[in-house]
Amino acid sequence: MTELREDGFLGGRLRIAQPVRGYRSGADAVMLAAACPAVAGQSVLELGCGAGVASLCLGWRVPGLRLVGLEQQADFAALARNNARTNEIGLEVITGDLERPPSGLRSQSFDQVIANPPYFLSGTPAPQQGRAVARQERTSLSAWIDAGLRRLRPGGGFTLIQRADRLDDVLAGFRGRAGAISVLPVASRMGRDAGRVLVMAQKGARTPLRLLAPLIMHAAPMHDGDREDLTTAARDILREGKPITWVFTKVS
Amino acid sequence: MTELREDGFLGGRLRIAQPVRGYRSGADAVMLAAACPAVAGQSVLELGCGAGVASLCLGWRVPGLRLVGLEQQADFAALARNNARTNEIGLEVITGDLERPPSGLRSQSFDQVIANPPYFLSGTPAPQQGRAVARQERTSLSAWIDAGLRRLRPGGGFTLIQRADRLDDVLAGFRGRAGAISVLPVASRMGRDAGRVLVMAQKGARTPLRLLAPLIMHAAPMHDGDREDLTTAARDILREGKPITWVFTKVS
Repeated sequence: MTELREDGFLGGRLRIAQPVRGYRSGADAVMLAAACPAVAGQSVLELGCGAGVASLCLGWRVPGLRLVGLEQQADFAALARNNARTNEIGLEVITGDLERPPSGLRSQSFDQVIANPPYFLSGTPAPQQGRAVARQERTSLSAWIDAGLRRLRPGGGFTLIQRADRLDDVLAGFRGRAGAISVLPVASRMGRDAGRVLVMAQKGARTPLRLLAPLIMHAAPMHDGDREDLTTAARDILREGKPITWVFTKVS
Repeated sequence: MTELREDGFLGGRLRIAQPVRGYRSGADAVMLAAACPAVAGQSVLELGCGAGVASLCLGWRVPGLRLVGLEQQADFAALARNNARTNEIGLEVITGDLERPPSGLRSQSFDQVIANPPYFLSGTPAPQQGRAVARQERTSLSAWIDAGLRRLRPGGGFTLIQRADRLDDVLAGFRGRAGAISVLPVASRMGRDAGRVLVMAQKGARTPLRLLAPLIMHAAPMHDGDREDLTTAARDILREGKPITWVFTKVS
């Protein structure tokens, strides 16, 4: 693995070592953790946990979880274990492929699954091997969703973050197998297309879908140099570690 | 058919006779028309045109279209023909079932299809027969989408409005058969869940999906008696007959 650097997350509350080059977790992993509705006493599996950012943010916010991360790349798995130790958060990291999980994992079911599947289709060139594996789609999005649903107990929650332009693929993956789907569009600025979607689904549920008001990340209408202009909602999530509440808002 | 009443649409620019009771078209039909990107010289088929509100709003905004409506209920079909005459807009209305369209229609293909499929699942009680047929789902949503795609030329555009909680069903209907899908959430007020979605798709396209910033209908944060509080965007569409522009907005 390339040179490492320690980054602060949640306003410096977590210190996470990551490779300087290649695949690096950022705001998306933090938002994924903020969106997971896990409560104390529950078990949570993260598919493709990388350096552990999402699981550790979740563990920081919700004490009393049993956190398990599955990571295909041994060097990232080792990094996640180190990051868990550094931050004194319990995270069991299993090295393995989500399409062929180790038998010890196959025998378990979880209350919650979280995932930040790769954003780019395989075939996109990427210079570093770590980046290539993590960001390209060697494993299809439907395989990620399938693997997560298999490890969820009936009624368990699946939370994922993905590029907004793949919302159709996400919904196709859940179709007929999970319901009570909530879609939270994430847009950089007011009036813009969503760049990401946070999607939450409940295994086996049949409740209809909800399409929520977007989460807006930046307050200024345009990018304004290096000045931080996070909205209050974004700052609460990224800097304060607050949860995203999927509260029901009355429909028109 | 029950007693009729003439309603004004587009700020009184159109006069549309509709039954006083039972199924009545309203803002959704006007928004559907506003969302259709048809240009002069094109042909447009409306599935389930009812009293003709959507097609006539579209015909008012875009002169030089060839407009065809398909309507299963003979009394609504007759009403749509009368409404077209009253407003001096050319609209050919064909009485027939979209799952078994008349041969004269089956031999045609269109540049654009528009539809406002029923919102309620069959089995929901509805007192009037007209309402029962129009609002309940005797024909499944997937059958509506299938019928529309069959009548579209390759590359033609399909625009529909539907309850937001059926977005997954809409996307499933288009899956593998249409792309360049744009999803415009429509919410009654800022911060609320979307109540409707306007969805536009292009037959045979493979371009990824876009999830747009929501169209907000009312400016006040709460319902405030009978005072009209339409946002500028909603007023432009509903009162001025302006189009919804599916402009590309930069993604985060």
